[in-house]
Amino acid sequence: MLDNLEKFCDLKRNIAEINIDPLQRGGILTPQARAALVEWGDGYSVCDFCAGMLDRIKTPPVEEFVHGALPEFLGTDEVRITHGAREGKFAAMHALCEKGDWVVVDGNAHYTTILAAERAGLKVEFVPSSKEPDYAISAEGYIQAIERAYEQKGNVSMAVLTYPDGNYGNLPDARAISDACHDYNVPLLLNGAYSIGRMPVNARELGADIIVGSGHKSMAASGPVGVLGGSEEYAKLMFRLSSTKKNKEVELLGCTVRGAPLLTLMASFPAVVERVRRWPEEVENARWFSAEMEKLGMSLQGDRPHNHDLMFFIAENLYQISLKAKKGRYFLYRDLKERGISGIKPGLTRQFKLSTFGLSREDLEKVLQAFAGIIESYEKT
Amino acid sequence: MLDNLEKFCDLKRNIAEINIDPLQRGGILTPQARAALVEWGDGYSVCDFCAGMLDRIKTPPVEEFVHGALPEFLGTDEVRITHGAREGKFAAMHALCEKGDWVVVDGNAHYTTILAAERAGLKVEFVPSSKEPDYAISAEGYIQAIERAYEQKGNVSMAVLTYPDGNYGNLPDARAISDACHDYNVPLLLNGAYSIGRMPVNARELGADIIVGSGHKSMAASGPVGVLGGSEEYAKLMFRLSSTKKNKEVELLGCTVRGAPLLTLMASFPAVVERVRRWPEEVENARWFSAEMEKLGMSLQGDRPHNHDLMFFIAENLYQISLKAKKGRYFLYRDLKERGISGIKPGLTRQFKLSTFGLSREDLEKVLQAFAGIIESYEKT
Repeated sequence: MLDNLEKFCDLKRNIAEINIDPLQRGGILTPQARAALVEWGDGYSVCDFCAGMLDRIKTPPVEEFVHGALPEFLGTDEVRITHGAREGKFAAMHALCEKGDWVVVDGNAHYTTILAAERAGLKVEFVPSSKEPDYAISAEGYIQAIERAYEQKGNVSMAVLTYPDGNYGNLPDARAISDACHDYNVPLLLNGAYSIGRMPVNARELGADIIVGSGHKSMAASGPVGVLGGSEEYAKLMFRLSSTKKNKEVELLGCTVRGAPLLTLMASFPAVVERVRRWPEEVENARWFSAEMEKLGMSLQGDRPHNHDLMFFIAENLYQISLKAKKGRYFLYRDLKERGISGIKPGLTRQFKLSTFGLSREDLEKVLQAFAGIIESYEKT
Repeated sequence: MLDNLEKFCDLKRNIAEINIDPLQRGGILTPQARAALVEWGDGYSVCDFCAGMLDRIKTPPVEEFVHGALPEFLGTDEVRITHGAREGKFAAMHALCEKGDWVVVDGNAHYTTILAAERAGLKVEFVPSSKEPDYAISAEGYIQAIERAYEQKGNVSMAVLTYPDGNYGNLPDARAISDACHDYNVPLLLNGAYSIGRMPVNARELGADIIVGSGHKSMAASGPVGVLGGSEEYAKLMFRLSSTKKNKEVELLGCTVRGAPLLTLMASFPAVVERVRRWPEEVENARWFSAEMEKLGMSLQGDRPHNHDLMFFIAENLYQISLKAKKGRYFLYRDLKERGISGIKPGLTRQFKLSTFGLSREDLEKVLQAFAGIIESYEKT
């Protein structure tokens, strides 16, 4: 038994020339991160000179990164490294909420927010988004959701805002929402998995009490790795020390990312800071791209003008093609792949999301030409 | 602000020729894992062809690894990937125990077992080890600890055995301990962070209901990554599906290691299976090495004969040297490093642990010569 195991070795990734998957655009490694991965690949390599606390390691300079650079970058008091945004959300909910409490969550939230609440034994009251094509989330919606939870005699111990959400790339008015939550003394957790590392995000300016980000989603890191930040009031609860084990933070089980992913996060950080400064160019590219897509007969959903590289399109024309094309609804995936483009889920035609993040105008033109070519090829027949 | 960030890039690891740190010996990457790290480094690379469940991904063959190879390797019904042994212990406790319950834990347990229990809101009743030099853990001790918890009107919902522990490398009689726990209907979690991937471990044969292992500690993987296995009865609770999010396992927050560490675990797996078959050689090396260390005046603690590569030594002679040596108790760290050896914590002289795992006789002879040379050099003065 346990033979023929070579199939688990030497596995190659089969990726297209241009990848427009929103999940993956922000996690492509920088050359610096790639070098860090090789240098620090061995298990527990970051622990060579550890005195017992991951975030206090001086060689490599984890302490300076976690206690200096990251709090400034995120605009928050305290930051720790997590296994990712979802693990950060669970840690915050588990530390700050009591089982049976209510958490108020935007209707566009990522599924992991709901799982984190379910794992922590919390009830979820949703803030519904407005109807298509906007899918907007408002401060008024948070007020109503908190009121609804109160009516059920619930204790609302947290609100979560997905900023932006992973479907439409919408950026709600976070400041107005945090103000509304604070009027009810409810802390706001900002899920910045699709923003931190792409665009400027400052927890303090947005009024976010807790903030999570994802290294592998938006900070050019090899995952899983993320960041969890909080204002002093909440940080001291989230990062409380064990009652029996000296210097060990309970909610983090002592140390979280005791390996290479942390070093890739650090190695990419200068490039990430730099790309965040170039965010206006990314927004400009996204707006130009979506206008061109609309000329081809597809329709952008969500914020207009759009403020993020993640975009959701309705494509009635592609759906019509799928009804007649060979392989049916898989034609788009296949035809795009033939043209060197991947990242739209196999089987989707009528609606899909994509990201333009970090792609040059030249690459984006190739994507547009691919869509145009596909549409044209079926119009002929 | 946020300038001079280049210090986070291009960081080199300063490691000695021979590393005897028990934490790191089992996590050194195979060439196959190193290649996987580079190939799959980008964030979310394993998700290229995912249909919604990490453990069901067919390309790369994660499903075959998680549902085929690993259950057979661990001798258990169901396995999932975790961020490491500690995260596996917490997931098991969080899923299977109620806040306020008792968990019975061996006195040699890793600190993360205590943190996992504390995070899950559980009380801990310890099974004390016997006195020096054995530090043995017995089935009788588990019976007494369970009885003590019952006397406090507690509900004992789990027992944990560290196999082996990370201080002495002791391998208690797991079968006798699981039998004792089962007499009280208490499930046993086996912490195999230092065994799985080094030596043969079969949960079913040992009577372990739940089992955790560490990829970065003992399976030649780039961490953090681990395995969590369970018999059907407990697996269905630990891996229960969300009530609202289709196909998503609550306790794992949907997916855990959505990145390269999983691919390194897979790539090293054939070599790991092979090295587990060579375990008797490792034990032989450890016994020979410890006998030689004792000839130099140091004393092995724990099991005798010793059954594991992790060993704890008392070194009165080195302690005596530290009282007079330049730099005091840091002399040993410095003098070993000068001789190309690292892995004993700076400042330790009177007692320390080390591992011989995966080191050749030639390398082990260099380590012995270093100790001999250091002792001799101070005897002269």
